[in-house]
Amino acid sequence: MQRILDEALKSASLSQLQEDCEALRAEIVRTVSARGGHLASNLGVVELTVALHRIFDFPADKLVFDVGHQCYPHKLLSDRCERFSTLRSRGGISGFPKRTESVYDCYDTGHAGTALSAALGIAKARDLKGESFSVIALIGDGAFHNGLIYEALNSLRALHTRVLIILNDNGMSISPTVGGTHDALEALKNQGTADDVRLWERYGLRYMGVYNGNDLTELLPAMQNAKEALKKESVLLHVTTKKGQGHPFCEQAPELTHGVTLGKKGAEYADALGDELVRLAEKDARIVAVTAAMTDALGLRPFFEKYPDRAFDVGICEEHACVLSAALAAGGMKPYFAIYSTFLQRAYDEIIHDVCGQRLPVTFCIDRAGVSGADGETHQGVFDLSYLSPIPDLAIAVPRSISEFRAMLRMSVSYAGPLAIRYPREGSETGVFPVEIGKFEVWRSNMSDIIIYAAGERCISLAERVCDRAAEEGIAVSLVNARFIKPIDEALLDARKERCVITLEDNALIGGLGDAVARHLRGRGKQIFAFGYKDAFIPHGDARALFSEFGPNEEDVLACVRECHARG
Amino acid sequence: MQRILDEALKSASLSQLQEDCEALRAEIVRTVSARGGHLASNLGVVELTVALHRIFDFPADKLVFDVGHQCYPHKLLSDRCERFSTLRSRGGISGFPKRTESVYDCYDTGHAGTALSAALGIAKARDLKGESFSVIALIGDGAFHNGLIYEALNSLRALHTRVLIILNDNGMSISPTVGGTHDALEALKNQGTADDVRLWERYGLRYMGVYNGNDLTELLPAMQNAKEALKKESVLLHVTTKKGQGHPFCEQAPELTHGVTLGKKGAEYADALGDELVRLAEKDARIVAVTAAMTDALGLRPFFEKYPDRAFDVGICEEHACVLSAALAAGGMKPYFAIYSTFLQRAYDEIIHDVCGQRLPVTFCIDRAGVSGADGETHQGVFDLSYLSPIPDLAIAVPRSISEFRAMLRMSVSYAGPLAIRYPREGSETGVFPVEIGKFEVWRSNMSDIIIYAAGERCISLAERVCDRAAEEGIAVSLVNARFIKPIDEALLDARKERCVITLEDNALIGGLGDAVARHLRGRGKQIFAFGYKDAFIPHGDARALFSEFGPNEEDVLACVRECHARG
Repeated sequence: MQRILDEALKSASLSQLQEDCEALRAEIVRTVSARGGHLASNLGVVELTVALHRIFDFPADKLVFDVGHQCYPHKLLSDRCERFSTLRSRGGISGFPKRTESVYDCYDTGHAGTALSAALGIAKARDLKGESFSVIALIGDGAFHNGLIYEALNSLRALHTRVLIILNDNGMSISPTVGGTHDALEALKNQGTADDVRLWERYGLRYMGVYNGNDLTELLPAMQNAKEALKKESVLLHVTTKKGQGHPFCEQAPELTHGVTLGKKGAEYADALGDELVRLAEKDARIVAVTAAMTDALGLRPFFEKYPDRAFDVGICEEHACVLSAALAAGGMKPYFAIYSTFLQRAYDEIIHDVCGQRLPVTFCIDRAGVSGADGETHQGVFDLSYLSPIPDLAIAVPRSISEFRAMLRMSVSYAGPLAIRYPREGSETGVFPVEIGKFEVWRSNMSDIIIYAAGERCISLAERVCDRAAEEGIAVSLVNARFIKPIDEALLDARKERCVITLEDNALIGGLGDAVARHLRGRGKQIFAFGYKDAFIPHGDARALFSEFGPNEEDVLACVRECHARG
Repeated sequence: MQRILDEALKSASLSQLQEDCEALRAEIVRTVSARGGHLASNLGVVELTVALHRIFDFPADKLVFDVGHQCYPHKLLSDRCERFSTLRSRGGISGFPKRTESVYDCYDTGHAGTALSAALGIAKARDLKGESFSVIALIGDGAFHNGLIYEALNSLRALHTRVLIILNDNGMSISPTVGGTHDALEALKNQGTADDVRLWERYGLRYMGVYNGNDLTELLPAMQNAKEALKKESVLLHVTTKKGQGHPFCEQAPELTHGVTLGKKGAEYADALGDELVRLAEKDARIVAVTAAMTDALGLRPFFEKYPDRAFDVGICEEHACVLSAALAAGGMKPYFAIYSTFLQRAYDEIIHDVCGQRLPVTFCIDRAGVSGADGETHQGVFDLSYLSPIPDLAIAVPRSISEFRAMLRMSVSYAGPLAIRYPREGSETGVFPVEIGKFEVWRSNMSDIIIYAAGERCISLAERVCDRAAEEGIAVSLVNARFIKPIDEALLDARKERCVITLEDNALIGGLGDAVARHLRGRGKQIFAFGYKDAFIPHGDARALFSEFGPNEEDVLACVRECHARG
């Protein structure tokens, strides 16, 4: 589509604006159909974004998103319209706000709950510099339950500045929203007494509501009023919208159309998690499952359906989910806390302080480890082995296949300490083999001076290809499935005689398998070559291509093998 | 003092209970005077703890503390009375709740905001197991503003269980409490309308208040009523107490007597932070300071007094403090976010996602790095180099003295990226030398085959002693101040010819300086020996003794030097 310029938007008639909204919707559906991405959340905020662009002046005014699953209309209305069809592809438009992409994006996001803190910081900097523009935080009601929002709300008055909070209330996180704050907002929507309003005044916010946020006739004057009020004080503009608005299937199934993934879906670790947990829970009443608003994506739906009393979705609250898991374990349960790799960063202190500090038997099921692809920097799970490794008493497992993941889950039931199992989205079923904590698996053992220790399915596959190609050149290479980063298999490392040691991992090179193997082998006169992700934030793109570009690369590893061989 | 048994407490007269309270107070003052520890917070909850022990049945009922700065009366009333005089000393009673110490402690704490999540997990486990006992979360009003509490509140109803929340409202975090939630509670205290109460009902809580929480005549019946109500629903018992109650100086100066440290105070990095920031801020209007309720302990008081508009205390909200810092930087400011090493774990995702992901020039001033001593496991800052190292674009500095810290702060002003400077509490002023990002400093360069790379004041001191003792034995050793863990000084590492490389760091051995040096020197045929903290949670005790026991040890390093020399 052609860009709708702000000047045009500002002078357009209501019916023209409504046409613009439909054009934006059509473009979003077209692009997401071709590229994947977030559909229902973006369709819901089309009118809201048009109203923002009509009434405020971007990029002079600043719009801070929360998470950013609703930034597509903003991108289409700003300087990314012509390139929008490149959405989420390498070198193309990001699915999230990005300062490096446009002056219209003032703050990068991807994880939940940051918008109010960010808006307050930007507004405060404005005040200190004596500038004047409006700062707006656009927050979904799911993210509004994240603890960060509460922390920011409590400091709002003390910061003595002015921001406009737009609460985009569609009643959904990724799953439906629950909780006391949501109910307080529902009350406002349904009756709106002075006392309900006073709650927000205590936080220093003037409450204003628009309960048909997909109707421009209501939305435009409300937005104008909010802009006026913002001149004097901070404002909470509560806008209810319909997730998936204007797209019948999305309206009916917002959970299924929150994120759209294209291409043939391979086998997923998430499905195995659901299967196995249901099976294990039948025999063991201690097993419970915890998630932070990601029941479906993590494969937990079957468990939630079969064991609703033993399944806990606490909303987008990773820290609370982690402490709840620790305490369930302290109370005698066997919790499985499933989460994406980068979201677990939110609970880092709780892993150390609550779970491992008390050596409680929580099992972390860490999905989307390694590059995850089109979501970009904020979703590339390349740090987990590094940040988990220094934590005492935590065992860290990396399955080489979905089948091995199943075996690890079965093993975990009788494991009495904290355990992390990290895996990518897709994988393959192989044979089923028993797994023992801290024991590697010898995969190919050759009369060779070269050995590869590889962790995880992507790296095992890469290593096999390298071994095969090396064999064709007459170079024998041994291969070990390094399935525990911690405790590492010291006995096996001690026993292997190969002089050249190559490590492959689907993690940042700093602080993962390579460092652990090298640490153990120090002083043995071995040559060690470690392959993992470069020390860089990895942009959005195709996961396979990103793995080759930023991670271990088949040609580089083969070249390393050849060099080891040549040196004799 | 002699233990006051629960049976005695349950049958005691009011006047006897009041005498018991005074006995507890006297014992707390006596012990803290001898051992250091948290004074004002514990004095404030004496009556509250007596009421809890009179009305509930511990350890059958479960009492979960938040932070745990108010657990001394509970320890004295349970099975730690006789050993209480060993408080905070190695092998003695911990200053925080510890499951390994007593069956009366059901959940370990040390950081803020975990109690409600923990209580919910323990209560839910109870329900699933068909058991029946009361679960009580005792939370200070400072911790009540932490985001974790809000996350737990929002999930309370959905979890369908019953807990008693006791909000110990003394109007203080470590600094005075601010924020909207606090005001909502103040309103209840001052007028208490049905609408204020309804706020808590929405979260699934029956509100009850006692506004003279140091008066047993009010407290005892209120606690009994709360216990009754808890049979049917979750309860919020809002108890106002006076921090430091019964001790005139504490009542007057609760901030100064929150924590009591004994012994002659050496020079502190915190004081240098305050000094330098004030000085630098005079010349640079971009400089702002952020803290999470730790203004005094971090040395920021002079900055807050001189630049109140550029100084932000956001309460015990490390995540919000980090995002606020990132956004202030995005808005053109130069923020210094000062924080203790282990509390920064709370903001781990925000360091990655908000600060480094956008390459924003936030400077993290990380105090209490390395073992911090008497506070124990939850306060030993031994993980920061490990969890910070894998983050792209973050520079990590470790000063060798307070003077070098000052030089680093001066250097930081013109540094355009994210920077972490980590340091222990105490140190020494030395000469002043310029510092350049990523450059080590050669300290002693000898004709030698042995070189020590040491990071931080404790390790430099240790290395100097080792070098001196080695020199007496005729062994020459070179010594380098490895003051940047990242970027590491590759040019210097490349240039040095010594075959034996020893690293010393005041951090966990996994993932710190040793691994970074070894990673860079791979394939050079060097012998590398790394010294740092063992892979274990480090208990409370004397910081110096803990450093020798769990960290690099002078005798071990000297033995390593001798062995390197002997091998030739």
